[in-house]
Amino acid sequence: MHKLTTLLLCIISTTAFAQTQEDHSHKLARSLKFPNVPGYKVMKCDLHMHTVFSDGSVWPDIRVAEALMDGLDAISLTEHLEYQPHKADIPHPDRNRSYELAIKEAKDHNLLIIRGSEITRKMPPGHNNAIFIEDANKMLVDDSVAVFREAKRQKAFTFWNHPMWMAQRPDGISTLTPMHKLLIKEKLLDGIEVVNDGSYSDEALQIALDNNLTIMGTSDVHKLIDWTFGVPQGGHRPITLVFAKEPTIEGIKEGLENRRTVAFFKDLLIGRDEYLIPLIKESLKITSAKYLPKTSVLELEIENLTSATFTLQNRSKYTFAENSDIITLKAGEKTKLQVKTKDKLSSIDLNFEVLNAIHSPNSHPAVTLQATSITQ
Amino acid sequence: MHKLTTLLLCIISTTAFAQTQEDHSHKLARSLKFPNVPGYKVMKCDLHMHTVFSDGSVWPDIRVAEALMDGLDAISLTEHLEYQPHKADIPHPDRNRSYELAIKEAKDHNLLIIRGSEITRKMPPGHNNAIFIEDANKMLVDDSVAVFREAKRQKAFTFWNHPMWMAQRPDGISTLTPMHKLLIKEKLLDGIEVVNDGSYSDEALQIALDNNLTIMGTSDVHKLIDWTFGVPQGGHRPITLVFAKEPTIEGIKEGLENRRTVAFFKDLLIGRDEYLIPLIKESLKITSAKYLPKTSVLELEIENLTSATFTLQNRSKYTFAENSDIITLKAGEKTKLQVKTKDKLSSIDLNFEVLNAIHSPNSHPAVTLQATSITQ
Amino acid sequence: MHKLTTLLLCIISTTAFAQTQEDHSHKLARSLKFPNVPGYKVMKCDLHMHTVFSDGSVWPDIRVAEALMDGLDAISLTEHLEYQPHKADIPHPDRNRSYELAIKEAKDHNLLIIRGSEITRKMPPGHNNAIFIEDANKMLVDDSVAVFREAKRQKAFTFWNHPMWMAQRPDGISTLTPMHKLLIKEKLLDGIEVVNDGSYSDEALQIALDNNLTIMGTSDVHKLIDWTFGVPQGGHRPITLVFAKEPTIEGIKEGLENRRTVAFFKDLLIGRDEYLIPLIKESLKITSAKYLPKTSVLELEIENLTSATFTLQNRSKYTFAENSDIITLKAGEKTKLQVKTKDKLSSIDLNFEVLNAIHSPNSHPAVTLQATSITQ
Amino acid sequence: MHKLTTLLLCIISTTAFAQTQEDHSHKLARSLKFPNVPGYKVMKCDLHMHTVFSDGSVWPDIRVAEALMDGLDAISLTEHLEYQPHKADIPHPDRNRSYELAIKEAKDHNLLIIRGSEITRKMPPGHNNAIFIEDANKMLVDDSVAVFREAKRQKAFTFWNHPMWMAQRPDGISTLTPMHKLLIKEKLLDGIEVVNDGSYSDEALQIALDNNLTIMGTSDVHKLIDWTFGVPQGGHRPITLVFAKEPTIEGIKEGLENRRTVAFFKDLLIGRDEYLIPLIKESLKITSAKYLPKTSVLELEIENLTSATFTLQNRSKYTFAENSDIITLKAGEKTKLQVKTKDKLSSIDLNFEVLNAIHSPNSHPAVTLQATSITQ
Repeated sequence: MHKLTTLLLCIISTTAFAQTQEDHSHKLARSLKFPNVPGYKVMKCDLHMHTVFSDGSVWPDIRVAEALMDGLDAISLTEHLEYQPHKADIPHPDRNRSYELAIKEAKDHNLLIIRGSEITRKMPPGHNNAIFIEDANKMLVDDSVAVFREAKRQKAFTFWNHPMWMAQRPDGISTLTPMHKLLIKEKLLDGIEVVNDGSYSDEALQIALDNNLTIMGTSDVHKLIDWTFGVPQGGHRPITLVFAKEPTIEGIKEGLENRRTVAFFKDLLIGRDEYLIPLIKESLKITSAKYLPKTSVLELEIENLTSATFTLQNRSKYTFAENSDIITLKAGEKTKLQVKTKDKLSSIDLNFEVLNAIHSPNSHPAVTLQATSITQ
Repeated sequence: MHKLTTLLLCIISTTAFAQTQEDHSHKLARSLKFPNVPGYKVMKCDLHMHTVFSDGSVWPDIRVAEALMDGLDAISLTEHLEYQPHKADIPHPDRNRSYELAIKEAKDHNLLIIRGSEITRKMPPGHNNAIFIEDANKMLVDDSVAVFREAKRQKAFTFWNHPMWMAQRPDGISTLTPMHKLLIKEKLLDGIEVVNDGSYSDEALQIALDNNLTIMGTSDVHKLIDWTFGVPQGGHRPITLVFAKEPTIEGIKEGLENRRTVAFFKDLLIGRDEYLIPLIKESLKITSAKYLPKTSVLELEIENLTSATFTLQNRSKYTFAENSDIITLKAGEKTKLQVKTKDKLSSIDLNFEVLNAIHSPNSHPAVTLQATSITQ
Repeated sequence: MHKLTTLLLCIISTTAFAQTQEDHSHKLARSLKFPNVPGYKVMKCDLHMHTVFSDGSVWPDIRVAEALMDGLDAISLTEHLEYQPHKADIPHPDRNRSYELAIKEAKDHNLLIIRGSEITRKMPPGHNNAIFIEDANKMLVDDSVAVFREAKRQKAFTFWNHPMWMAQRPDGISTLTPMHKLLIKEKLLDGIEVVNDGSYSDEALQIALDNNLTIMGTSDVHKLIDWTFGVPQGGHRPITLVFAKEPTIEGIKEGLENRRTVAFFKDLLIGRDEYLIPLIKESLKITSAKYLPKTSVLELEIENLTSATFTLQNRSKYTFAENSDIITLKAGEKTKLQVKTKDKLSSIDLNFEVLNAIHSPNSHPAVTLQATSITQ
Repeated sequence: MHKLTTLLLCIISTTAFAQTQEDHSHKLARSLKFPNVPGYKVMKCDLHMHTVFSDGSVWPDIRVAEALMDGLDAISLTEHLEYQPHKADIPHPDRNRSYELAIKEAKDHNLLIIRGSEITRKMPPGHNNAIFIEDANKMLVDDSVAVFREAKRQKAFTFWNHPMWMAQRPDGISTLTPMHKLLIKEKLLDGIEVVNDGSYSDEALQIALDNNLTIMGTSDVHKLIDWTFGVPQGGHRPITLVFAKEPTIEGIKEGLENRRTVAFFKDLLIGRDEYLIPLIKESLKITSAKYLPKTSVLELEIENLTSATFTLQNRSKYTFAENSDIITLKAGEKTKLQVKTKDKLSSIDLNFEVLNAIHSPNSHPAVTLQATSITQ
C-alpha cells in the first residue's frame, strides 16, 4: 500500500521532470517548405523509418518530434516485420505497437501517422514497405508473394525499398527480378524508392517510369535525423511530396496510388512532368518586373518559395546582364535577374531547363516563367 | 528452413545498412576539453542519464554516441529502478540490461561505462543515484533507507539528484530533510547534484560544503543531448570533472569518494578551491610575455585550454591598456592583455577573481597568473 | 568645343556608373542601438576621425557611409591642423574642406556633421580636438595655449585625445601636465578621451572625474571602420553617447559642455552614475514576470535593448534557479531569469552590480531592476 | 624653428599611431586561390580600379591593402585621364601620382603595381584602359584614336571597358562600332572586358572570340571592395587570371598580349578552351579512388583547389550512387563521388560538361577527369 503511493507519486513527478527539459531545437528554421499546386495539397511525407521496435535507436516519440521540427505532414514507422534485433528486450507480440505509441505522441499536433511495416526479405524481393495497412500482425506471412497479397487484402500501398542497396545489389544498379515483374504485373507492388537515405538511383527512376510505379523518396532513418542528414549543417532528410486532393491519410493514399509524387533529395526534385511542372511553377514566383531606367534591360525579382535551391539553365534567346546561362535561385530567397530584351516588352516568356529537377535519368524538365504587367 | 536462411541474410544485411548511414555529426567541434592537473587525470563524466530502459527516449547506443561526440571519459546509464513507464513494451526483468547494451556498444571506444541506477522515491529522500553498483536487480528494495544500505553493500557511490527540483521542492530551494541527515550521518549518501540538467543551486552547493558531500553536475538527459542542451547552437551538457589518480573506473570512483570534483555547467566551474585552483592554473597559460617596443606596457598572450569561457576580475594594482577590470578569455582561444607596469619588470604576478568559478554561494576563487621570462 | 562636350558627357555618365555599384554592406545588422532616457535624447556620436584631408585613407564620403551603416547620429571629421602628410597632393588651403564635402554627402540623410579639427602637438599638450568650431583655418595658431583660446573664441568644445597614447606616454598612463592643468583651470579644455581606438584608460577616467571633464570615447579611425574594429566579426567602433535635450548639433554641444556623456567601447559603458544609471534602466526592461506553476519560483524575462551585452552580478538576497550570481544579458536579446523568492511576492526589487558599466576605475554602478504586477 | 621641431615630432608620432590600429580583416580566409598550369604561372590580376586620384573614394594604400587581403598578384590603378571630379582638391598635374603612391605602399609586399590609365570618352570609343604605359601625362590627347596611338607608342596593352555599360549602351548589349573596328584592325585595341563590376556580357565574349581580343574581368572598384562585392558575406571581386611565363610585370604583359587569360566572376571561369581546360584540370584533383568493399561501386574523392565552386554535368555512360548528373564541388573542399562501374575497372575516364566555365556564349567546355591506380 505504501509502496503503491510512492510509485504513483514518482510516476507523476518523473514525467513532469522529463517534460521540463528545455528544448533548444526550435531555434533552427529547419521546417521544409513547398507550396500547394492547383487542385492538390502538396503533402510532405517520410514513409520509411525505424524505431527501437525494429532496428532503430529511438523511441517513437523522437520520430514524432523530428517530423514536427521538419514540418512534415505525415510519417510512417515501418518497422521490419521479420528483423527484430531488440526482440530480447522488446518481445511485444503486437507489431502495431510502434504505430500506436506514435499516434498517442502526435495527438495534439498536425501530423498524420500512417500504419506501415517493412517486409524484410533477401533478394528477391528484397525489402518492401506496405503502408496504410490495417494490422501489421497479419503481415507475418512466410511466402514472399503471399505477404504482398495480404498487404493488398488490407488495401495497403506497397513499394520496393532501396532497390540500389549495395548489400543486396553489389553493383548498386537496380534491376527488376522476375519476382518483381510478377508483383508489378499482379498489381501487388505500387511504388519504388528512387531515393533512400543518402542514395539516388537513375536506374530505379527508369524502372518507375517503365512500369508506372510511384516515385518514392524516404529517409529510412535508424538513428537520428539530425546526425544522419546533417540538419544543423543545413542538410535535410529525403521526403516524398504527395499531391493529395485532401490533406488526410486517405488523400495521401489516393495520391500515392495514382502516382502523384515528387521525391525531394538534397536540392533535387524527382518526378513526372505532370507533377514536377506545376510544382516548379508554384515554387518560383516573379514578384516584380520592371525596366531599369533609361534602358531596355528588364529586371525581374524571382522568389523561390521552397526549401530546394534551384539551378536553371537559360533556354531563351535572351541574355542576362549579371549572369551566364546558369541561374541559381537560393531556397527561400528572392533573386534578381536582369534580362536584355533589346526592345521594351509588355510581357515575356523565359524558358529554362531546371537542372535540379529530374523527370528521367540525366534529363531535366523545361519550364516557362512568364512575366506580364511589366513596369516600363 | 528456408525462412531461417532468409532471416539470417536479413540480419546481416540490415545491420550493414544501418551502419552505412552517413553521420554528419562529427563535423561539429563539440568535444569538451579540460587539461589534467598535477597528480590527477581530469575525467569528464556524465553520471546521470536515461534510455528507453526507464523513461528515456533512446536506445543505449545513442547515449554512447553522444558521449563520444562530447569527448567524455565516462558515463552511467542510471535508469529509474521504480519508475518503468515502458514496462509494457520492455518487460525485461534484468535492471542491468541498459548497462550491458552500452558496454557492448562502447567496446571499441575509449569510453568507460559505469553501472548505476536511480533510486526513485518521493521526498524524502527524493531521487538518488547509486553508481559503481554490482547488480541493479538487488537494488529493488522497498524501504528508502534500506536501499541505500544495499547500495553500500555493493560498494556504490551515492548522490542526491536535483535536490532543487521544483516538482519535489516548490520553492526550488534545496534543504536537508531528517532522512537525508540520517543518510549522511550513516555514510550512506556521498554526493549531491549542484547542477542537474538546466538548473544550478547555490543551496545545494552550501549543503555539499557543510556536509562534506561530493559536488556533482549531470545532464539527467531523457531525450537528445543535442536538443536539450542546444549543442548545434554552442551549448553543452553539464558534466562532473573527476580528479582521478588513474583513468579507470576505479580511479573515478576513488576520486568521487574523496570529493575531488568540479561541476561544469554553461561556462561555470563549481568546486572546492583545492581542485578549482589547480584546474584554473592548468586551464589558463601565458604563452607569451613581452614589453611593447619603447614602452613599459607588457603584452601577455593567455591561452584558454578549456571549453569554458573565463571571466576574470582584476585584483592587481595594475591597470590594462585595452580592458577594464573585467577580462574575457574565450573558450579555446588565445587572448592578448596589455598590462601597464610603469617600471619594466622581469616577472609579474597578476591576481584575479575568477567570476565563472564558484567555490561557495556568490563567492569566486582568486588565482594568480604568473609570467616569468618576460621579453624586455 | 568638341572636347568640352565630350568631357561633359563623361562626367555625367561616369558618375552614374559609380553609383550603380551594388552595395552589399546593408545586409549586416550593424546599426548601434541605445534607448533615450527621460529628459534626453541619447545621441550616438563619433567625434574624432580622419580622411585623406589629413592622414586618413578615405575620402569623406566613406566616413559618411560608415556612420550611416553604424546608425550614428553625428560625426566630426577632425583633420590634423598641423599634420598634413598628403599636402603634396591635396594642397587645399581651406582646412574646412573635409567638413564641407561631408556636409554635402550627408545632405539627404539623418546624420549631423560637426565641424572640428585636431590640434596636433607634441606633449604637452599632445593632441586635442576642438569641435563645433566656426572656421578651421583660424585655428592655425602657433602657440599651444593660444590655439585653445582661439577655439574658445569660436565657442568650441575641446577635449584631450588619447592621453594614454604610448607614442607620447611610454607607460601608457595618463597624467596631467602643468599645461593641461592650466588649460583646465582657464576652462580651455572641456573633455578627455577615456577611450580612443582600441584603448581604454582607467587613469584618464580618474582625471575626468577629478577635474570635471567630459568623458569621451572615439574611433580616431584612419583606415576603414570595418577593418579596424572587425565589424563583420561582430566588433564595433567606440562612440560617445551624448545626452542631449534636442537631437541637434546645438543639443549635442550643450550635452557635451554639461558633461552628460557615456562612452561605449566593446561591451563597456563608461560614465558618471547620473547618466549611466538612467541609461541602464532604459536599456534593460522586464517584459514578463510570472511564477512558474505550483512553485514560488519567479520567472522574469529581461530585454536588453542595446548593442552592449550586459554582465550583472547579483547583489540581492535571492538566488537563481538556472544561474550563479553572474548573469549575462546578450545585446538585443531577451533572457529568462528564474528567481527563488521563497514566498510569492507581488513585486520585487533585484539589485545588481553592472560589471560592464564603469563609474570610476575598477568600480561598477549598482542598479535595481523592479518587477511589479507579477502574475501569480 | 620651434614650430618645425613640433611638427617633426608630430609627423613621426602620428604616423606611428595610424599604424598601430589593429586590423581584424586578416581573420577572413578571403585570399583567392587558383593553381598554376603546366608552362604558366596563373597570375591573379585586377587591372581596372580607381582612387581619389580620379573618382574613387580611397587613397591608393587601401587598394594595396585590399589586393593583399584578396591574395592578388598584380593590380593597376587606372584613374580616368579626362574625368577628375576631385580636381578642386587634388590638382596634382602628374597623372602618374596614384601609381607612385601605390608602388611605395606595396614595396615590402609581393604585389605588382602596373601603371595604367582609363581613357574616358563618350561612345565611341567609350571607356578604355591602357596599362603598362610609361607616362600617363602623355596620354592627355584630344583625339580618340590618337590617344590609342600614343598608348601603343608607349607599348601599352589596351582594352575596352564595360562595353555592356547601360549608361552608354541602353540595351546592355555590346556591339562593335566602326571606331572599335578601326582600333582593332590597326592593332590599337587588344582586349575587352567580358566582366566588369557586377556585369557579365555574352555579347562581349562573342566580340572577343570573333576579333581575337583578350578576355578581361575587372572590379572597376570606386568605393570599397568589401562593400561592393560583399566579401564578408562570401563574395569576391572579379579578376583576370593571366597565364604568364614569368611571375613579373613583363610576364603578365606578354600573357595578356597573347590572349592567355581566364576571367573569374562569382563562380564562373570565362575563357578560351586552350587556357580553361588546363586550368580546370589543375583545379580538380582526384585524391583517392577505391572500390567500396564487396561492390563494383567506385568511390572517388575530388579536391577543388580553387576559390570557385564547380558545377559539373555528367557526360559519361556511368551513373552515380548519391548524385544525379549534376555534381557540385565546393570551393576549396574535397567531395566524394560514387560511380557505378558495373565491372571493376583499373582506370576510368569521367567526362563532364563544366557548367561554371564558359568558352562561348551559352556553351560550356568538356573535361575528362581520369583516375588511374584504383584500389580494388
